[in-house]
Amino acid sequence: MRLAEQEARARLAAHDHGILCTVHAERGVDAVPVAYVVDDDGFVGVPVDRVKPKTSTRLQRERNLEADPRGTLLVEHWDPHDWSRLWWVRAELRWRRDGAGRAEALAAGLAERYPQYRGRPFAKVLVLRIVGVTGWAAAGG
Amino acid sequence: MRLAEQEARARLAAHDHGILCTVHAERGVDAVPVAYVVDDDGFVGVPVDRVKPKTSTRLQRERNLEADPRGTLLVEHWDPHDWSRLWWVRAELRWRRDGAGRAEALAAGLAERYPQYRGRPFAKVLVLRIVGVTGWAAAGG
Repeated sequence: MRLAEQEARARLAAHDHGILCTVHAERGVDAVPVAYVVDDDGFVGVPVDRVKPKTSTRLQRERNLEADPRGTLLVEHWDPHDWSRLWWVRAELRWRRDGAGRAEALAAGLAERYPQYRGRPFAKVLVLRIVGVTGWAAAGG
Repeated sequence: MRLAEQEARARLAAHDHGILCTVHAERGVDAVPVAYVVDDDGFVGVPVDRVKPKTSTRLQRERNLEADPRGTLLVEHWDPHDWSRLWWVRAELRWRRDGAGRAEALAAGLAERYPQYRGRPFAKVLVLRIVGVTGWAAAGG
């Protein structure tokens, strides 16, 4: 059953991680698990790790968004034994190159949400605006 | 660290579900959790549920692949407390409209892999060829 938008947004805000999908001109879709935070105005912050021995894969999401600002964040619950408990929520996003003045607040939100980010060990925060949310659950309640 | 291709393919074949991403001309990326099976020749089978009170979301993946055969399947392991255990594998896929003669074998593989599919309660199986696999793990071993 389709989730009501308010319920879908609540699950999106509460879940502990998601899959960020961006468009790659040749490959089609790049998808990578991410930590994230959602603020009250419908913006999502996704940390970009500090450059260490950086793989090209990590930077690819930014190159993709530069070329095509459309992103998708999927969060989902899987239960191998009881499929009546499955659900997912998908947010359609638009990357904001300018950060919309929200990068710092979202960075603070990430540090609050994830103990691993308390010392802010990320280089920056990608800011994406939510333009639509849909969700589905196998069963109600 | 990047996973060796053999290790990445082994984790892809063994994991219990994934995120299937397809390209939507307007939205950019559609992403949905799926059950799947991988055969020894590098083909992935994804079941399409029987038409019941069908949501448009479920059929969208097929419409997307008709327009653009590029798909991505992401599998991932998340651990909220120990990020040194995180890993993911991403397979780049091409949808085969003709099923490459493999739909029946992949349907049998799905029924074998998932108890929920023993009675084959799916309408058909999407057949996609793996054209590339990449993977990452936070730590080795």
